[in-house]
Amino acid sequence: MTEIKRASVLLAHGSSDPQWVTPFTQLLAHIREQLPQDGVRTELAFMELASPSLSDTIRRLAAGGCNHIDVLPLFFAAGRHLRRDVPAMLDDLQAALQQQGLAVTIHLHSPVGLEPEVARAISQVVVRQLS
Amino acid sequence: MTEIKRASVLLAHGSSDPQWVTPFTQLLAHIREQLPQDGVRTELAFMELASPSLSDTIRRLAAGGCNHIDVLPLFFAAGRHLRRDVPAMLDDLQAALQQQGLAVTIHLHSPVGLEPEVARAISQVVVRQLS
Repeated sequence: MTEIKRASVLLAHGSSDPQWVTPFTQLLAHIREQLPQDGVRTELAFMELASPSLSDTIRRLAAGGCNHIDVLPLFFAAGRHLRRDVPAMLDDLQAALQQQGLAVTIHLHSPVGLEPEVARAISQVVVRQLS
Repeated sequence: MTEIKRASVLLAHGSSDPQWVTPFTQLLAHIREQLPQDGVRTELAFMELASPSLSDTIRRLAAGGCNHIDVLPLFFAAGRHLRRDVPAMLDDLQAALQQQGLAVTIHLHSPVGLEPEVARAISQVVVRQLS
């Protein structure tokens, strides 16, 4: 029986503007602090315009022995990228890794912005800014 | 003395995918419920690929008599769009409206995703999904 070794990737859109990345690296640091020290390895990757890319990150994790990878999109909503491009890319990548003898299960989650607590926090901020 | 008539615009990126818009219209409805009934008029607009555009929305609000407009970006971070394109567009628009006799003050806020409560909610969701 193969031992399950999990990892997770926070997926952000990416931007050609280097300053854009900063809040995401801060968020990653904050999340790592809250996760158990011996828990799931958590990385940050970008869909385009910034590095590391999602595919490079997953290849690296797979090469390091991870065989269950959760991808958590830091998006407000799912559009073409998350409903078509990313699933297609992950399917191809999973098949390519399989051919290299790396059997990896990849689970693409719903965008975090769709979760009720995030929507609630956004509402609170907007209502406060307008009051 | 001119009476101040405020309005606000929630600015989302926009997508060619019609389903992408749904969570934002839900968020707008939720925010409108929480704001006082006699308070600031609040609209939703998109930077690209979806309508209404930010400029059309501001023109419409200005034509309706609004002279103080808050623009609140529903973004996780500020990249090229929010730091260059949008401010330049708003400056041009403000000058064009002024020439038409519509003096409008437009205030572009920081992205809501940078606010601590939103970042905290995102961390909570991610930690829960990974636990």
